[in-house]
Amino acid sequence: MEKINLSEKFDLFSETWSPRIVAELNGQHVKLAKIEGAFEWHSHPEEDELFLVVRGSMTVRLRDRDLVLGEGEMCVVPRGVEHMPVAESEAHILLFEPAGTLNTGDRRSERTQEELPWI
Amino acid sequence: MEKINLSEKFDLFSETWSPRIVAELNGQHVKLAKIEGAFEWHSHPEEDELFLVVRGSMTVRLRDRDLVLGEGEMCVVPRGVEHMPVAESEAHILLFEPAGTLNTGDRRSERTQEELPWI
Repeated sequence: MEKINLSEKFDLFSETWSPRIVAELNGQHVKLAKIEGAFEWHSHPEEDELFLVVRGSMTVRLRDRDLVLGEGEMCVVPRGVEHMPVAESEAHILLFEPAGTLNTGDRRSERTQEELPWI
Repeated sequence: MEKINLSEKFDLFSETWSPRIVAELNGQHVKLAKIEGAFEWHSHPEEDELFLVVRGSMTVRLRDRDLVLGEGEMCVVPRGVEHMPVAESEAHILLFEPAGTLNTGDRRSERTQEELPWI
């Protein structure tokens, strides 16, 4: 059991759209990601996904509306709901979702990351 | 699906040691709590518990050491591990744990909260 300092963890990597795992509990993973630009439309058939903005801001695009999240704001995208994360400039976010959740959800692309590193 | 602003949620209550639920996903709850002073020793037999400090600082006392957490720092207390949360002055924390996790864990006291309100 150790203390996890989010800011120090974010300093350990620079790649965007490349989540890192920082903790596991109850079969869930806490992941950190740096994001910039637009990701791709996807959904997670069996997994609800939490986005919490730690620095900057992001938009969770949904098919019928956009959710704009600033620092200290979060949302839960329920399983099966199509979404596309977007950040106009680099944002740092925390994700909470079941272990094994694929970043591209129900589809695989060149952005799919099968194995996420721990930091 | 709605945006959850942590600061606005914390403004909705003032009681300490009285967690509120702000989100549910994958059978887990995201809770917010204001804490001040010492809680009581307890453990959760089946539940890992995440503490993330949003404002102020707290100490997670363990039987063999103390973990001091500042803003933006977190830890996971594994199931079965005795711990006692303490805050010298009021701190605002986010908890992540399975739905139904009892705040006093394996024991009931006057501090036990059977039903947590949503905010």
